[in-house]
Amino acid sequence: MNRAALINEIKQKQSFLCVGLDTDIEKTPLHFQSRPNGVVEFNKQIIDATKDYCVAYKINTAFYEAMGARGWDAMEETCDYIPSSHLKIADAKRADIGNTSTYYAKAFFEKLKFDAITVAPYMGEDSIRPFLEHENKWTIVLGLTSNKGANDFETLPLKNEKQLFEQVLHSVSKWGNENNLMFVVGATQAEQLSAIRKIIPNHFLLIPGVGAQGGSLKDVAHYGLNEDCGLLVNASRAIIYADNTDSFTIEAKKVAAQYREEMKLYL
Amino acid sequence: MNRAALINEIKQKQSFLCVGLDTDIEKTPLHFQSRPNGVVEFNKQIIDATKDYCVAYKINTAFYEAMGARGWDAMEETCDYIPSSHLKIADAKRADIGNTSTYYAKAFFEKLKFDAITVAPYMGEDSIRPFLEHENKWTIVLGLTSNKGANDFETLPLKNEKQLFEQVLHSVSKWGNENNLMFVVGATQAEQLSAIRKIIPNHFLLIPGVGAQGGSLKDVAHYGLNEDCGLLVNASRAIIYADNTDSFTIEAKKVAAQYREEMKLYL
Repeated sequence: MNRAALINEIKQKQSFLCVGLDTDIEKTPLHFQSRPNGVVEFNKQIIDATKDYCVAYKINTAFYEAMGARGWDAMEETCDYIPSSHLKIADAKRADIGNTSTYYAKAFFEKLKFDAITVAPYMGEDSIRPFLEHENKWTIVLGLTSNKGANDFETLPLKNEKQLFEQVLHSVSKWGNENNLMFVVGATQAEQLSAIRKIIPNHFLLIPGVGAQGGSLKDVAHYGLNEDCGLLVNASRAIIYADNTDSFTIEAKKVAAQYREEMKLYL
Repeated sequence: MNRAALINEIKQKQSFLCVGLDTDIEKTPLHFQSRPNGVVEFNKQIIDATKDYCVAYKINTAFYEAMGARGWDAMEETCDYIPSSHLKIADAKRADIGNTSTYYAKAFFEKLKFDAITVAPYMGEDSIRPFLEHENKWTIVLGLTSNKGANDFETLPLKNEKQLFEQVLHSVSKWGNENNLMFVVGATQAEQLSAIRKIIPNHFLLIPGVGAQGGSLKDVAHYGLNEDCGLLVNASRAIIYADNTDSFTIEAKKVAAQYREEMKLYL
């Protein structure tokens, strides 16, 4: 999915919501838990309930890997079920030496049909380059994350007066462009978004941390929106576990619709 | 596998060799390529041929993920086949917010029966903590890697005069101890090992980059060995693709034995 198609989808829906499918079978309504393909059935119902209100889905690979090989099948089946109108993000936090990253890119862009993957920047350019070489795919690089540990290394001051994450944004933005690169910035770091927008005014940002992690959508929109919207705000637990009874799709839909209503105001 | 058992294995075998199972079916001898479970059959023969000369196996997850769900099965079958005398390392370069890392730890330490996993430090303490909480398991954190991109961020000078990777070694070594933490240091960075040993004198280091990537075993041993050996030197392509005819096990065994002979000299 290219940038124009993504922006068009955002404008049509008046939404920049990404729904995170961090599905743990033990947190789904009871009747899914005894079914052999419960995770996929749950995901399909969540997708049906929310697709009119969001423009992207993010599959967190950890939750599927914890199920072993059948989790990988569940990831594939879920990915295939997401409508092609929606950006399909593998939240995988991969990256390794170039020869290895080539195989990760193959895993997520060719074997699985994701449009985008999240990657960690620590190992530098040659660890990220193989992802960027895939046409019409997105590489989403960790910038400033939403967790407390972001202060351990990401915000360390460098000798050149930049913080590490600022240097990451500066350097990585030169390795690709606004059509194949996005950055992760946590919603809990909203005040930093003005400074971040000075470094990367045009890139899309994937913003996790709204909802369960406590970030404010209002602040994120205030500091982060650009002319093309430029934001994908993710909510996972707040939507998929809005309710754990048989009414879960009604509640998930309601919460997704609420996010969309609020997003409409800001766009 | 705990530290005492690992050290004992090293002393008995007079080897600190780790064999990397970065198996790409297209690079194996032809007759494996048409077999449905070719990767596992190849790996089993490599393990049989090399197990007397090494103390660890490292499975690079990217190569298996590129095969989809059946790759995950192949990873599990391979992991189960590795003798319990050998340290089983998942070279997975994972880490995410704490809630997610908990699922990665579950995937590799519980669902798959690995003894160790490689993780990236960028997201800080809470992204690494869930791995450290598993008893008798090892968390192997990226320090200074073997690739060219190591110079993009890892060696950046911080305001406190340390390079980023040195700060990573300093900080992360406080989150765990010598019994549950190791660090990745590339063999191509051997001259840096003296300085690294001043920061973490006692930790085991996982050293990739010997062989195909050009690092020198002699230099690594010279600068990196400590009283308990403290090194695991990985070779992947140099061993598993030593030959791509039907004699591949003979050649793999020969190369592994050569590494062991050289290691004996240094121990």
